[in-house]
Amino acid sequence: MKDLVIGIDIGGTFTKFGFVDIEGNILAEGVSPTDMFNNADDYLHALVKEIEKTEKHINSPFQITGVGIGAPNANYHMGTIENAANLNWEGVVPLAEMVKARFGVPVKMTNDANAAALGEMLYGAARGMRDFIMITLGTGLGSGIVVNGELVYGHDGFAGEIGHVKVISGGRKCGCGHEGCLETFVSAPGIKRTVFELLARNNGNSELAKISFQELTSEMIYQAAKRNDPLALEAFEISGQILGRQLADSVAHTSPEAIFLFGGLAKSGDFILNPARKSLEENLISPYKGKVKLLLSGLMGKNVAILGAAALIWKDS
Amino acid sequence: MKDLVIGIDIGGTFTKFGFVDIEGNILAEGVSPTDMFNNADDYLHALVKEIEKTEKHINSPFQITGVGIGAPNANYHMGTIENAANLNWEGVVPLAEMVKARFGVPVKMTNDANAAALGEMLYGAARGMRDFIMITLGTGLGSGIVVNGELVYGHDGFAGEIGHVKVISGGRKCGCGHEGCLETFVSAPGIKRTVFELLARNNGNSELAKISFQELTSEMIYQAAKRNDPLALEAFEISGQILGRQLADSVAHTSPEAIFLFGGLAKSGDFILNPARKSLEENLISPYKGKVKLLLSGLMGKNVAILGAAALIWKDS
Repeated sequence: MKDLVIGIDIGGTFTKFGFVDIEGNILAEGVSPTDMFNNADDYLHALVKEIEKTEKHINSPFQITGVGIGAPNANYHMGTIENAANLNWEGVVPLAEMVKARFGVPVKMTNDANAAALGEMLYGAARGMRDFIMITLGTGLGSGIVVNGELVYGHDGFAGEIGHVKVISGGRKCGCGHEGCLETFVSAPGIKRTVFELLARNNGNSELAKISFQELTSEMIYQAAKRNDPLALEAFEISGQILGRQLADSVAHTSPEAIFLFGGLAKSGDFILNPARKSLEENLISPYKGKVKLLLSGLMGKNVAILGAAALIWKDS
Repeated sequence: MKDLVIGIDIGGTFTKFGFVDIEGNILAEGVSPTDMFNNADDYLHALVKEIEKTEKHINSPFQITGVGIGAPNANYHMGTIENAANLNWEGVVPLAEMVKARFGVPVKMTNDANAAALGEMLYGAARGMRDFIMITLGTGLGSGIVVNGELVYGHDGFAGEIGHVKVISGGRKCGCGHEGCLETFVSAPGIKRTVFELLARNNGNSELAKISFQELTSEMIYQAAKRNDPLALEAFEISGQILGRQLADSVAHTSPEAIFLFGGLAKSGDFILNPARKSLEENLISPYKGKVKLLLSGLMGKNVAILGAAALIWKDS
């Protein structure tokens, strides 16, 4: 009988899940809606139904040994989701307990960037590393920090919000209510804002000048950069520069062996990596110089969210 | 027979040491010069002699169970002091090994801020805390970060250099070779530089206008602030503001329960604490708001450097 862990990735619109073995193979996966439900009970009822439907596709005998969940505003210590702005559930939802009541196995929950860090540690390029940082570049900038081989959850279970360190005081407005946070520059919407700032400064002069703010995606900026559009290239240069500078400050905190980038914007590869590496190196103080690797995730293209959620359980078994 | 640990605090001019019991009592202490010697062998020879002389003052029977050392540029993992700018020894000195050869007991070494963090955890106000940050405000700004009850040493043994996160790019020149580091604003020399900036901006108008740059100390600024000198008060306000803002970024990394201030500048108490608390709270993102205590060390006035160095050994026994 094979041991499997259910890895669940709760997004604002959809919840994805998979049955993951100890080697990081996903034996079956499925999807259930998130935003269709106004309370966590109805949501969970539908999700469990979908999970039960999906597990029938697994041909060999198995048993579920745990459930790992990656979710926005997840408190690892309490197993709760707290005041998540992009979920319909208000207040503090004890989701881990609710899931445990359904499956009768251990349940662990953290945010998606922390889960991604665990995924990288168990199945990706951070195997064997005891100190590293995972940066996820999507609609925001998420981070998971690993110290002494353990994820840093912090006193309250909410550690690892590097997306909200301040780059420029009085800078761009951030969804968190503050201004000038790193993710207002370095994320899919962040680089888009940089493109529009550059369009304003240079009075157009780019193929991106034809596209509205609403339509523009970071993928389009990447494609333009591949066609050598100077403005798109400059936007990547600026994003990388700012990222590298701020990561130097993160290194001054926990001195990691490597920093991994993951997510939509990371797919642009060298366009963001090269300026980020240069700027990181320039901004590191001497004890750290030449010691910190800035790399793409070893799990690019894989379902890191599900793998990472499952890793919450596999890590300790 | 009482177990004792020798705690050694290596400074640029003097080396202080003490015999510390498990409760943090210093049974005897002494001093030996640091800068009189051009190599570590001669230095250590003199220090050991001094230690042997001092231990004769301990009346009850005892045995030495370990030696803990706080030193600049100390690499915890390797037990080495590496390229310390303010010591006469060049290159990488395997001091822990050399001390072990003399005493035949376990030897551990880290930098003074890390040692102070351990001292706070074992004997001070951080007792029972698993996640906190220690900030030492002296000639520089040192930091020791504790996560999950363990000091963060990082991949290379040099983690915890919050003094060198960047406050203002292209700002004040720092001893590390970079510009705009936190410690160029928040440290004894940092607040002095702020006073001189304010004197320049305000064209004098302070009792501190009578004192040369060379003569001015942070203690004088503190005394002037107590006499309500507006410029001295403004200098503390600015220092606290900058400190609080940067600590908010540190909280976004490791989410500590508390941050402790220690060292010369911390003695100014509320003058720096009040603006720092206000600015910290303003700059925290919502998951952290109202949760992080900013406090003075519980060991103010005690020999934290020696206690902390000894704590390196006592912690694991």
